[in-house]
Amino acid sequence: MALTPLLFVLHSRVIQPWLERCPSDEREPDKITEENPVILAGFGRFGHIVGRLLRANGVGCTVLETDPEQIELIARFGIKAYFGDATRAELLQSAGAAKAKIFISTIADTEKSVQLVKMIQKEFPHLHIFARAVDRQHATELLHAGVDNIVRETLSSALDLGVSALRDLGFRGVEALRAARIFKILDEKGLRELAVYSDDEKTYITHARQHIENLERVLQADHQRRAKEVADAGWEARAAEKED
Amino acid sequence: MALTPLLFVLHSRVIQPWLERCPSDEREPDKITEENPVILAGFGRFGHIVGRLLRANGVGCTVLETDPEQIELIARFGIKAYFGDATRAELLQSAGAAKAKIFISTIADTEKSVQLVKMIQKEFPHLHIFARAVDRQHATELLHAGVDNIVRETLSSALDLGVSALRDLGFRGVEALRAARIFKILDEKGLRELAVYSDDEKTYITHARQHIENLERVLQADHQRRAKEVADAGWEARAAEKED
Repeated sequence: MALTPLLFVLHSRVIQPWLERCPSDEREPDKITEENPVILAGFGRFGHIVGRLLRANGVGCTVLETDPEQIELIARFGIKAYFGDATRAELLQSAGAAKAKIFISTIADTEKSVQLVKMIQKEFPHLHIFARAVDRQHATELLHAGVDNIVRETLSSALDLGVSALRDLGFRGVEALRAARIFKILDEKGLRELAVYSDDEKTYITHARQHIENLERVLQADHQRRAKEVADAGWEARAAEKED
Repeated sequence: MALTPLLFVLHSRVIQPWLERCPSDEREPDKITEENPVILAGFGRFGHIVGRLLRANGVGCTVLETDPEQIELIARFGIKAYFGDATRAELLQSAGAAKAKIFISTIADTEKSVQLVKMIQKEFPHLHIFARAVDRQHATELLHAGVDNIVRETLSSALDLGVSALRDLGFRGVEALRAARIFKILDEKGLRELAVYSDDEKTYITHARQHIENLERVLQADHQRRAKEVADAGWEARAAEKED
């Protein structure tokens, strides 16, 4: 399909890696005219969902973005973001960081993201930090930096797709969702436990294999136990019917 | 080669040039020695979560991957993937596509992903297709191609992060999750409704703005209604206590 102008704009402005972008040194940061409990850095495909969810729940959110084109684009959709680089402490100061409660980083550039959270911890230690991680490696680096509230950007969606496929194969919705929930809990636990081995590839892989096998065992055992419960319930229902 | 004329054109104009750019594709595809209900293309950070969830639930999954290093890496974690390009119909044939039930594309290259699902629809029309979309634009293209089971790769994780932030700000867990669920349902609905305007930038933006505003209104109204219910329940509880 040929790319339509709009979709092309969306693609090139929202998707292009942040890595390729450098904030223009020439342009002064926007003057920030509001104070909110949440400061949100990055307003691409990830950040704009977070910001819109918060706003729709009545939570004010000051949005900082380094891509002028992205700021212009989202303004057309009726959403305000300020031009400014969140890694500059003085900009965060003017964004009301001293009075805010939460700082959310949705920056995909892993190096910049880790640098940013370290600066926040140093300059604004009262802020609760929430961070998007691009992958397991990035998440591990954020953990090492002392950030606890980390969301790996594709984990939940991959589980969503798995749940849809399981349902299509005949799994009951509640069972498929339960399996995904157990998977996620164990995978998050594994991420934390494996983080201590991140400097030692061989040990890391040995432990990761054990985690993967263990996760499979837990899910299979749970699946069998639940299947038995359902079968028992069916038997009991039939027995009850006979008694009637 | 038993390629239909259309596929031949596709192959010579699109796939072949791509193959020529990728030295790894000079390697012959692996011989596939299993038959499973699910064929999964792509086994990176997204695909491996899907594959592991399915396998842990006892669902066999034949995995195709074009990156030899990724295949080697995951083999070290005890997981098998075959080297092979899923866009080649004859490879899918040898992977048992004729007998499989589900095809899952987790390919992040949007152009290749759309090409792939179109080929599947033509060559293996019985397969239920599930696809990862990198972003809204990719999702729109997949919708236009007739794929219905689409998961945008960062949507759920962005909502997860939003839920954590809302809870940190004092929202009850059940309320934050409810808000995210409503957001997701309305956003998916919006994606489908807006897809028809994807050729007309101005109309698209007008309708998208309305969707965004409408979503906020619905969530705010729901939030207020729920808050009132909770307050009423509290009043009733206090009234009941007085009566005791």
